[in-house]
Amino acid sequence: MARQERAIETRRRLLVGAAQVFDERGYAAASINEIQERSGVTKGAMYFHFASKEDIARGVMAVQTEIPIGTSGRAASPMQQVVDLTHDLAHRLRTDVLFRASIRLTVERGTFQVNDADPYDWWLRIFGRELARAQGAGELREDLVPEDVAASVVGSFTGIQMLSHVVSGRRDLHDRLTRWWQQILPGIATPEALRTVRPAGTPGPGRPDGA
Amino acid sequence: MARQERAIETRRRLLVGAAQVFDERGYAAASINEIQERSGVTKGAMYFHFASKEDIARGVMAVQTEIPIGTSGRAASPMQQVVDLTHDLAHRLRTDVLFRASIRLTVERGTFQVNDADPYDWWLRIFGRELARAQGAGELREDLVPEDVAASVVGSFTGIQMLSHVVSGRRDLHDRLTRWWQQILPGIATPEALRTVRPAGTPGPGRPDGA
Repeated sequence: MARQERAIETRRRLLVGAAQVFDERGYAAASINEIQERSGVTKGAMYFHFASKEDIARGVMAVQTEIPIGTSGRAASPMQQVVDLTHDLAHRLRTDVLFRASIRLTVERGTFQVNDADPYDWWLRIFGRELARAQGAGELREDLVPEDVAASVVGSFTGIQMLSHVVSGRRDLHDRLTRWWQQILPGIATPEALRTVRPAGTPGPGRPDGA
Repeated sequence: MARQERAIETRRRLLVGAAQVFDERGYAAASINEIQERSGVTKGAMYFHFASKEDIARGVMAVQTEIPIGTSGRAASPMQQVVDLTHDLAHRLRTDVLFRASIRLTVERGTFQVNDADPYDWWLRIFGRELARAQGAGELREDLVPEDVAASVVGSFTGIQMLSHVVSGRRDLHDRLTRWWQQILPGIATPEALRTVRPAGTPGPGRPDGA
């Protein structure tokens, strides 16, 4: 392995090890020694990549803004794409410790000095853009501001995944999201979109039955 | 002051001092020394009331289940009562550090050993009961299960207040809730309820303009 590849692999192992510890304990209770042990790298290698626990946490938090958006790519329309995106994020929360820790660090605000609003801004922009596309396609009601709906979607998703986490370890997250979409779509979608958009997301990999 | 009254007052001061520290730093970063100093009570008095930092945190968390529910009492109907309750909680979050810290400790799960689901269960029961009343009064759609709607309300409220916190220090929380109710009411309320229920809550103290 070339030196640069090794460095990328070491950084990745550090982020995954740190994510495991942050996901289990939160930021404040995580120790840098445990992160190093969990990652299986030397102390020297760790401090080559990250100056401090805070620095590692920044790296983990940045993960959520580095994932490909709209991964499924199967959605039949922009509004369906918005619904699918929430299910994609749910799947990611359930299966990817790096993404899960990134969200936990975001949610447990204020325990270290990162500008708290940055990750939220990221998701508000993503959903705002997709909802504007849905409005352009005649799927989001004309009297609504896409950014306002994006704020409700991002806020609701954040809290619903937390509730699902404490109640079921996120096993029921897709079902909760589906019911939530069933409840909110009549107030935000046009009648045409309401007939076609699937609250459970487009059926496919990483999705429950689809219904 | 009688001995019992003094004890109640001391306990209250400890909870408020602890709430200030938890609200600022979260559980893990809060120190028991700072809580004692902030409360202005002696170490002896503190350990008379609470065995540990965890014990104090339990006391603070319990506050949210001890507040009077439906305080405004001005709602014209059960569904309006549900909407009003979310605005009452928003007002409480903005003005009561004890309540605010109680919610923060709930949200930052897993950093100490309290059964995470308890406070959520409390709110799910409260909202489930009120939404069942709304269904009995012909305001919640017949094809919906009140507990499912309660899960969406509790989840969405949790996340929306967090988003409002990082974006505006919760100054825009009533506005965000109002827009969220405008978006979700058409999907959960009957046409009759939709004509009468105010998304901004019943006008009155602790409420924005009402609109």
